[in-house]
Amino acid sequence: MKLFNLNDLSKDELKKLFLRQAIDNIKVSGIVNPILNDIKLGGLDSVIKYAKKFDALETDDILVSKIEIDNSLKSISKSSKNALELAYQNIYKFHEKEIPKSFSIETMPGVKCSREFRAIENVGLYIPGGTAVLPSTVLMLGIPAKIAGCKRVVLCSPVGKVISNEVLYAANLCGISEIYKVGGAQAVGLMSYGTAKIEKVDKIFGPGNQYVTCAKSIISIDPDGCAIDMPAGPSEVLVIADETANARFIASDLLSQAEHGVDSQVILLTTSDVLAANVSKEVEEQSDKLERNSFITESLKSSFILKVNSLDDAFELSNKYAPEHLILNINNAESYSEKVINAGSVFVGEFSPESVGDYASGTNHSLPTYGYAKSYSGVSVDSFMKAITFQKLSKDGLKNIADTVITLAEVEKLDAHANAVKVRLENEN
Amino acid sequence: MKLFNLNDLSKDELKKLFLRQAIDNIKVSGIVNPILNDIKLGGLDSVIKYAKKFDALETDDILVSKIEIDNSLKSISKSSKNALELAYQNIYKFHEKEIPKSFSIETMPGVKCSREFRAIENVGLYIPGGTAVLPSTVLMLGIPAKIAGCKRVVLCSPVGKVISNEVLYAANLCGISEIYKVGGAQAVGLMSYGTAKIEKVDKIFGPGNQYVTCAKSIISIDPDGCAIDMPAGPSEVLVIADETANARFIASDLLSQAEHGVDSQVILLTTSDVLAANVSKEVEEQSDKLERNSFITESLKSSFILKVNSLDDAFELSNKYAPEHLILNINNAESYSEKVINAGSVFVGEFSPESVGDYASGTNHSLPTYGYAKSYSGVSVDSFMKAITFQKLSKDGLKNIADTVITLAEVEKLDAHANAVKVRLENEN
Repeated sequence: MKLFNLNDLSKDELKKLFLRQAIDNIKVSGIVNPILNDIKLGGLDSVIKYAKKFDALETDDILVSKIEIDNSLKSISKSSKNALELAYQNIYKFHEKEIPKSFSIETMPGVKCSREFRAIENVGLYIPGGTAVLPSTVLMLGIPAKIAGCKRVVLCSPVGKVISNEVLYAANLCGISEIYKVGGAQAVGLMSYGTAKIEKVDKIFGPGNQYVTCAKSIISIDPDGCAIDMPAGPSEVLVIADETANARFIASDLLSQAEHGVDSQVILLTTSDVLAANVSKEVEEQSDKLERNSFITESLKSSFILKVNSLDDAFELSNKYAPEHLILNINNAESYSEKVINAGSVFVGEFSPESVGDYASGTNHSLPTYGYAKSYSGVSVDSFMKAITFQKLSKDGLKNIADTVITLAEVEKLDAHANAVKVRLENEN
Repeated sequence: MKLFNLNDLSKDELKKLFLRQAIDNIKVSGIVNPILNDIKLGGLDSVIKYAKKFDALETDDILVSKIEIDNSLKSISKSSKNALELAYQNIYKFHEKEIPKSFSIETMPGVKCSREFRAIENVGLYIPGGTAVLPSTVLMLGIPAKIAGCKRVVLCSPVGKVISNEVLYAANLCGISEIYKVGGAQAVGLMSYGTAKIEKVDKIFGPGNQYVTCAKSIISIDPDGCAIDMPAGPSEVLVIADETANARFIASDLLSQAEHGVDSQVILLTTSDVLAANVSKEVEEQSDKLERNSFITESLKSSFILKVNSLDDAFELSNKYAPEHLILNINNAESYSEKVINAGSVFVGEFSPESVGDYASGTNHSLPTYGYAKSYSGVSVDSFMKAITFQKLSKDGLKNIADTVITLAEVEKLDAHANAVKVRLENEN
């Protein structure tokens, strides 16, 4: 891995070092836009056309059948089943604590205001497929949807012919049975616009390749489309480590992120020159033995190790970068957690590798990438709900607030607004 | 107003009746895109160029000076001051209850997970201007930003030369002093991209005309841009009323929404034929006396009264429409609140006109329009914060979870993920 020292870098060089790969939305949207427009007009036929072209769909029936589901539930291996069930339990326990609380307050005598939460009724989950099989993502999206109480949960995945036992088992744990063998931009089009027979959803969740994330962006600002969980870019990890850290552990964390794809970025900020050198060596040694070595070689090209002068330096740079995953491999790591301002999920101490959060610690792995952690949260139960506010005024309450409302309406030159208060109190004066 | 009976309408006619005006994003984005691109490259000079062209800016200094602020605080009228202060108090009291709660949980022995909230550091507020002056919107955005603890709050408003005393007074109450005399798409460009000297923000809030909302959409999916509060369309109200309701009150509510702009939509669903006729008559009588009668005449064209067979009909139609504002003018209105699934803010009972929520009851008036209430909430304190999750595993915790993580990583063919656990437990076995 490339090694740098903060003291050797100019401001511009430092900025350049932390730059993420540019996302070329224009090129991708040139491909995605026609697909979405086609589905808007052509409905299911268009969806099937693209699923056959891009997802290797081999049937005209995109809905996974009850028989397929039942077979999967029977044939899944014992070890996969146990692992999915333990992950389910941990994720459920954590997310249950996220349920937002309603409240009610009398802001002034006779003016009662409250805030209540409702599940979003129709949601769509996108589960990437292709070479990989991602049952963990089914749990990460399906569990909060279930806890929120969404009435209808649709799942789309580019599966061609046979959908994996693990994906179907995870979906079943979450109570999801409306599953379509459709992926890519066509899955986003299907869920956001609906077809004559398949109702559109109100919000789409889930990661995906550049076509999926581009399609999600487009439909999120299309008045005919729907909401999305968050914008996305390539996955990334930033590790902050001091001289007490174990170089092998850190190398394994950097590599577990680097194996995600060629565009992943992994960064180590450390106060120790010795550690920097050791991690670099360890990364080389460990990566030789890994199956996805070709991805790793590519993604390490945009990755680096930076020697900093202090942990304060490290946290400042990390907050500016706003990493999706942040690993704190430093002595007494927990005491630093309040220094974290911008990050998706944080892994505290040497025995908390990123992979525990990816699968089973309980936190969600759908996290803001590409610096979006500055303003977005990871997926949570609230992502599947929305708040409604209520106000109920008694006649006295209205009298108490009348002058204020009338004065402000007059300042804003909205006399019908003032009038709505006046007509209600007319017979009073 | 146009009157219909549910029993006379076909499914298609009903659907057409509730259709909102189409939003022509393509035409508007043709104007907005070049402005945004110009600002991305040209910075402050481009912002000033457009502010002079569109906002009647008369100076090269877009920042409102300390002297201007001090003068406003001195010269504001007593009544405006009192009204803003009471509104501030109510809104503050309500929003303080919204502060999201952190939590911590041990999902299994040795696996400690927590969720903490952080304020978004840099936020931008857009306050429409032109003919109207909107200090209420300053409070609705500035108060939750203050409660969240945002480090920097920027405000933009198209004010030309002199900014209103009320806007500056409201901004001062919220602790906002970085105020720019810039509006429209150029304000969105300024805040989302920043300039050499003005730092970009992480999220933009606030209503605006079609150029502002289009610009917000565009920057929300531009990787160089930033997050936004929510997409937007024209403002709207839906009233559900039974035979006990007062026709004058309802007419005044419909008109207070209709005066917002020519594209506002107002709808009454009622179980009473008599009420339907009386409201229609009242709307005509009252509107004659209102100053913004020309707006009202226009917006009533796309508005209607619909006689329904039951309150259940009404709630079903309302939830399908997902109104920004919902008024329940029915006997024992409070008992119906759980029937509301999709709405921005709800006004319960005959003494709760929409205008109290627009100004001073305490709830927020920045609400999801155009059916977005199906998936979006109104602006709240959480809109100005994001959540970060943490996990800290002890060595025993990692041992407890190891099999699960390794099994799932192997299912997903990510062996580096499994390896990050294995290296930490290597000397254990």
